[in-house]
Amino acid sequence: MLTNLLEGKRGIIFGALNDKSIAWKVAEIAHQQGAKFTLSNTEVACRMGEVRELSERLNAPLIAADATSVDDLKNVFEQSQEILGGKIDFVLHSIGMSLNVRKKRVYSDLDYNFLNKTLDISAISFHKMLQVAYQMDAISEWGSVVALTYVAAQRTLCDYNDMADAKALLESIARSFGYIYGCKRHVRINTISQSPTMTTAGSGIAGFDGLMDFSDRMSPLGNASAEDCANFVVTMFSDLTKKITMQNIFHDGGFSNMGMSQRAMTQYNKSFENEMAKPWELDPTATK
Amino acid sequence: MLTNLLEGKRGIIFGALNDKSIAWKVAEIAHQQGAKFTLSNTEVACRMGEVRELSERLNAPLIAADATSVDDLKNVFEQSQEILGGKIDFVLHSIGMSLNVRKKRVYSDLDYNFLNKTLDISAISFHKMLQVAYQMDAISEWGSVVALTYVAAQRTLCDYNDMADAKALLESIARSFGYIYGCKRHVRINTISQSPTMTTAGSGIAGFDGLMDFSDRMSPLGNASAEDCANFVVTMFSDLTKKITMQNIFHDGGFSNMGMSQRAMTQYNKSFENEMAKPWELDPTATK
Amino acid sequence: MLTNLLEGKRGIIFGALNDKSIAWKVAEIAHQQGAKFTLSNTEVACRMGEVRELSERLNAPLIAADATSVDDLKNVFEQSQEILGGKIDFVLHSIGMSLNVRKKRVYSDLDYNFLNKTLDISAISFHKMLQVAYQMDAISEWGSVVALTYVAAQRTLCDYNDMADAKALLESIARSFGYIYGCKRHVRINTISQSPTMTTAGSGIAGFDGLMDFSDRMSPLGNASAEDCANFVVTMFSDLTKKITMQNIFHDGGFSNMGMSQRAMTQYNKSFENEMAKPWELDPTATK
Amino acid sequence: MLTNLLEGKRGIIFGALNDKSIAWKVAEIAHQQGAKFTLSNTEVACRMGEVRELSERLNAPLIAADATSVDDLKNVFEQSQEILGGKIDFVLHSIGMSLNVRKKRVYSDLDYNFLNKTLDISAISFHKMLQVAYQMDAISEWGSVVALTYVAAQRTLCDYNDMADAKALLESIARSFGYIYGCKRHVRINTISQSPTMTTAGSGIAGFDGLMDFSDRMSPLGNASAEDCANFVVTMFSDLTKKITMQNIFHDGGFSNMGMSQRAMTQYNKSFENEMAKPWELDPTATK
Repeated sequence: MLTNLLEGKRGIIFGALNDKSIAWKVAEIAHQQGAKFTLSNTEVACRMGEVRELSERLNAPLIAADATSVDDLKNVFEQSQEILGGKIDFVLHSIGMSLNVRKKRVYSDLDYNFLNKTLDISAISFHKMLQVAYQMDAISEWGSVVALTYVAAQRTLCDYNDMADAKALLESIARSFGYIYGCKRHVRINTISQSPTMTTAGSGIAGFDGLMDFSDRMSPLGNASAEDCANFVVTMFSDLTKKITMQNIFHDGGFSNMGMSQRAMTQYNKSFENEMAKPWELDPTATK
Repeated sequence: MLTNLLEGKRGIIFGALNDKSIAWKVAEIAHQQGAKFTLSNTEVACRMGEVRELSERLNAPLIAADATSVDDLKNVFEQSQEILGGKIDFVLHSIGMSLNVRKKRVYSDLDYNFLNKTLDISAISFHKMLQVAYQMDAISEWGSVVALTYVAAQRTLCDYNDMADAKALLESIARSFGYIYGCKRHVRINTISQSPTMTTAGSGIAGFDGLMDFSDRMSPLGNASAEDCANFVVTMFSDLTKKITMQNIFHDGGFSNMGMSQRAMTQYNKSFENEMAKPWELDPTATK
Repeated sequence: MLTNLLEGKRGIIFGALNDKSIAWKVAEIAHQQGAKFTLSNTEVACRMGEVRELSERLNAPLIAADATSVDDLKNVFEQSQEILGGKIDFVLHSIGMSLNVRKKRVYSDLDYNFLNKTLDISAISFHKMLQVAYQMDAISEWGSVVALTYVAAQRTLCDYNDMADAKALLESIARSFGYIYGCKRHVRINTISQSPTMTTAGSGIAGFDGLMDFSDRMSPLGNASAEDCANFVVTMFSDLTKKITMQNIFHDGGFSNMGMSQRAMTQYNKSFENEMAKPWELDPTATK
Repeated sequence: MLTNLLEGKRGIIFGALNDKSIAWKVAEIAHQQGAKFTLSNTEVACRMGEVRELSERLNAPLIAADATSVDDLKNVFEQSQEILGGKIDFVLHSIGMSLNVRKKRVYSDLDYNFLNKTLDISAISFHKMLQVAYQMDAISEWGSVVALTYVAAQRTLCDYNDMADAKALLESIARSFGYIYGCKRHVRINTISQSPTMTTAGSGIAGFDGLMDFSDRMSPLGNASAEDCANFVVTMFSDLTKKITMQNIFHDGGFSNMGMSQRAMTQYNKSFENEMAKPWELDPTATK
């Protein structure tokens, strides 16, 4: 399958950090599909060798920005339009961070300054991005904006902490702004709720391994990888999905609509065998 | 707390089989709360000593009916109004059965006659009940109708088989008829999605024990019991919940909105310890 | 129906402003049902004659607090426990305010300081309340906490502005903390999504009248009133709903599950009659 | 954009009737994208000139089948594999019919034989199709199956009648079988919930025009057309969406997540102007 889904399209990809990032994979696949785009990340991330290498390899200029700064975001949209030669057709928001998680403040003992940061970086940044673009009229008619999210916005997962609330806020912003931008410029705004992914961000969450395993066994198709996700994101940027907006679409191998799978149940039930198995029962030389 | 929530109310309770049934508990608590009602079940169930004992103890006449028969249902509503002396204020539908489950036909090898039976008994019976009542104008203004359902209507659980589809259909009927009956007579129609419960029906499902345990550890309040459920049903029959209709309310200790709890994760993770533990490691007399 | 659903229960009710407030009605009905409680509101509101009158009439001490201040909230829980003589059994959060709405900043031109305030007052205050209570261990086993919300958290309504996002965040906090507090003390935390209500807050929203009419015609039972809502809140505080947690329950006459009703459609279709009717066609004496 | 998204893929498209059908558009676009496929419809439909013309134009053999007949469906899968030279990569189910709607039996006066037919044709046919394919192992690894549905499965629309329940059942079957087929062969099964569309089926519903208008004004992007839908279906058949399964995706211009739009509200409010406007008030020459 050699396609050209994003031929002639101009985009901005926020959040590519290293080759584990979903945004990184989106950049690679959008490039294959014929898109031109800029990359944006924090000043610190932009200085990293990996990100610079990606930028050069894909011929995608790097624009440093603090996604919580309206001025920085304005600059990203201005420069991107200049560099790419026109309005923006697609935007990816793949940004999230919780200081409460990092500093091991549990959900019943949040630091409220940290919470404000979590919300600002992980959710309000999306509103700022959209408001800046809207006021500059920087996105083309029928342009497509995607933000990445996680099922924790709907269902509580121990240890996901205040990121769950940030994702709920992010998804709400997608709906609220999707309405406005859709009416004004037919710009569509959606979130994609992705399987737990072993990105740098994901691996910071306590007990992530066990959760990855459970999620994989619960999902009939297994967990979706970063690359799988990037493939889907690209279809959402293409002209084939023009009438989808304000949606949160689960890209998760089926996890979100599972209550219990045979595979996960079998694994779970093994935990009891252990409890019931006495050492002497396992010693073949023992006599009852 | 001595209350009289259902004083003066007349009801019909379908599906009380034995003291494990949710409908049985609803009957007991509705009685305590001052309601008068009839009980209905299949001819076979009505001949059972247990059901007759309940009927006598609560002074609740028993009316045999096949819930898939429009004529039988008419008879239940006619007789109930006569016996109780007026229109019906509340109805409980606690009816479900799958021959595919009983005969161990898996979901990829359904017998379609059995499927039709599953849908007719477990879901369409609810429509028939409502249509009969509607056409006879047998339910009072602001009357309340509740059907019991399970989260399988939203999320797939291995082994729940075609009952999942029946519950989805049941919940849809509650919405569709809730609209019509609400407009006409302010009758409200809701479904309550209850934790897995060790009723006679529940215990017929393969692997139900493991699922009960998982569900209990996932739910911050643990699984809800049949008695817990009955308490809630009674509030839904009372005048305090008059403006709730067409809803599916989860009464499940929180399960439905959980992605993963610490307790379930800890148990799940034990399954791996077992796999790594070799017999000789567990034998204290063995030498490595 | 004379019941005593909340006999012996101690509570805190946040947000009663005047007799249009839902919290005001909850106070009145909780009082009838045998509860003792304190009332809390902002310093300014507490100075109002109406609130003081309610406080005296119901014998419910008034404790001023800025719900965004952790210290103030601590004080409310400390004093309430002292005054009422024990741990708290129920809490109502009925707090919300948007400066963006008040200052007519549309959603595509938000003031981000205002947005932070909206989120802090309308959503994060709920987390603060719960964290304070949790750390003080101020809520009884099986206590019940309810926050009021609106369907805008799920579906975009023009002019509801950043309050939609605040409500989405509020509902997420209810789930996240419901998990933790449920595990620790069986405290259940739910949100109730109420019909649009002509409270002081509601009436601040542009075009609220038209929306109220549409919502009423869409809902088979019509819009739920503040008093209806209070009745339901009281059942959620009672011991009859012990196993419901982390849920968002729609108390809205059926609106949330309606796509289109006959009544709303008929009204809507009238709008076209008007468009087709030209003035001269209505004037029998006019000549074209 | 010239792409080849379905190059080398083999499919079966059920339900193309005429050039208003979504299935018809899917056939045309799948053809453009390089797929080979068969078409299936009822014996009667297959005799129509239009369908035959499509079949010839796209070089897509026509196989008559009653979708409620397991034998007929077996024949479709057998012949299709033979004709296309291998296992099937994609299947479209675009089948629905209600005799209750046709014969004007309202939802509170359903004919239960008609209801059984509605469910059998519109929903159970999907299970039969999947069970036949599963047992014949007729679908390739990572194959994709899509059924078309409507938001009436979630939200009640006056006059949509028992089709709402059929769609709820259809969506449940997609989840239930999606689990099983995903585990066995990584086959993914999804439903697409499309805007109201002026197909032959749609136009049979009373008051459809008013609903189309309302839906269009509520949706920020307007109603999605049959062609828009076909474009999206094609992405779901492609290899770019491999990890999406058991989902119901709304392709509706944003309608499903709207509570009220400015455009629909403005139109709705006009209905009152009419009521208040008396003829003489509109005649500028009239004297009061």
